[in-house]
Amino acid sequence: MKKPLILICNDDGVTAPGIQSLIEAVRDLGEIMVVAPDKPQSGTGHGITLNATLRMQKIREEEGLKVCSCSGTPVDCIKLAIFKMEMKPAIILSGINHGSNASINVIYSGTMSAAVEGALENVPSIGFSLLDHSIDADFTAAKGIARQITIKAIEEGLPKGVCLNVNIPKLHAEEIAGIKVCRQAKGNWEEEFEARKDPMGNEYFWLTGTFNNQDHGEDTDIWALENNYVSVVPVQHDLTAHTALSEINNWDL
Amino acid sequence: MKKPLILICNDDGVTAPGIQSLIEAVRDLGEIMVVAPDKPQSGTGHGITLNATLRMQKIREEEGLKVCSCSGTPVDCIKLAIFKMEMKPAIILSGINHGSNASINVIYSGTMSAAVEGALENVPSIGFSLLDHSIDADFTAAKGIARQITIKAIEEGLPKGVCLNVNIPKLHAEEIAGIKVCRQAKGNWEEEFEARKDPMGNEYFWLTGTFNNQDHGEDTDIWALENNYVSVVPVQHDLTAHTALSEINNWDL
Repeated sequence: MKKPLILICNDDGVTAPGIQSLIEAVRDLGEIMVVAPDKPQSGTGHGITLNATLRMQKIREEEGLKVCSCSGTPVDCIKLAIFKMEMKPAIILSGINHGSNASINVIYSGTMSAAVEGALENVPSIGFSLLDHSIDADFTAAKGIARQITIKAIEEGLPKGVCLNVNIPKLHAEEIAGIKVCRQAKGNWEEEFEARKDPMGNEYFWLTGTFNNQDHGEDTDIWALENNYVSVVPVQHDLTAHTALSEINNWDL
Repeated sequence: MKKPLILICNDDGVTAPGIQSLIEAVRDLGEIMVVAPDKPQSGTGHGITLNATLRMQKIREEEGLKVCSCSGTPVDCIKLAIFKMEMKPAIILSGINHGSNASINVIYSGTMSAAVEGALENVPSIGFSLLDHSIDADFTAAKGIARQITIKAIEEGLPKGVCLNVNIPKLHAEEIAGIKVCRQAKGNWEEEFEARKDPMGNEYFWLTGTFNNQDHGEDTDIWALENNYVSVVPVQHDLTAHTALSEINNWDL
């Protein structure tokens, strides 16, 4: 029997330890095809490349594994794989992201946007993130979780247009309390722009900030992660605020 | 009485005719502050600038109007205005976009992401788009619509965390059938990557594609626009697929 085609992407770039860990975690489950950005693309959200050209390069090939880099965003990578390389993946995996994509981070995340784009093309898709930004992060426990959830998703499939946002606490496998299906916690970033002067005396800024959880529910991804659970949030691309339709309909326009 | 502060952004860049039309449309309704990208940022989605520095420059100031350009994305512009310049706008307006942001375009659109970011900060926010990509687009009717909806939103407010995605058909004012509150149509882009060779003989791609409406509902933005209505979709940033929670909860994880 032909092994399922597993398409892998991320936003930290094709050389990041996180994507290497993800490849290792699912290597024997299928034919692995990697199309990932050639440089870090964190925070590119659902960006696509309209005003510039795209390059793609095969950088590695061995039995059951092919790795390509792309000059664009994670969403560009998925589009190139599906429409240019005409792949029909059984599943798309994105990550393992270095750092959290829980709560509102989902909206800024290139890693999660690759998964959302996969869902848009009706391919079961999952984004994985480890709550550790470090380049030396220990992905051991995350690899086990990614493998377990991938196997389950291949078996069960996913509802049409829905992908999964999986966040994994920075813990050893035996410290993880379990896996919780949750909703996205309401939160935002309180930004602090660090102002500096360049050698010419002109001001520039670095975007930095602090995450602010505005949600005290115990059914959220933030609660799960703070209580040592892996969080799994089903994510959709219909942004309609259905509950607001009637209120806006009452406007006399 | 002090006039309300109106913050204006877009993704086509601070010099685009569309943003100039939006300024003109609401000029007398408040104190106008523009913080918009210094170059086209179409298709940057909810991207933010993490791996590079940001610049901001005041480019114009007159009674009741200040215009700044920013080197970053539309979302960067909103963050800079709110957190660095410490603005407390009464409303955020984004656009008028050159081209449609109906259906799935909302997810790729920098213009709409500026509005979503505003809603995240609990500021009533609206993105306006005209279904005409041309640099010479006629914004006359769109200006009237933008003004009318802005006045209504200032009067009524918007539900917390909800912004509006307003799309305007390419028609003269008298041809517009009315304004319809709708949901986002289900659709995707069938991409065609146009391959070319650079002078060194290496391949590169341009992303092009065709929009594919998968939705035959008569309550969608696509239906409204095809029937000469202005579409108004309330948009949220909670991406949780709430209807999928119970199905995923049944997985034995």
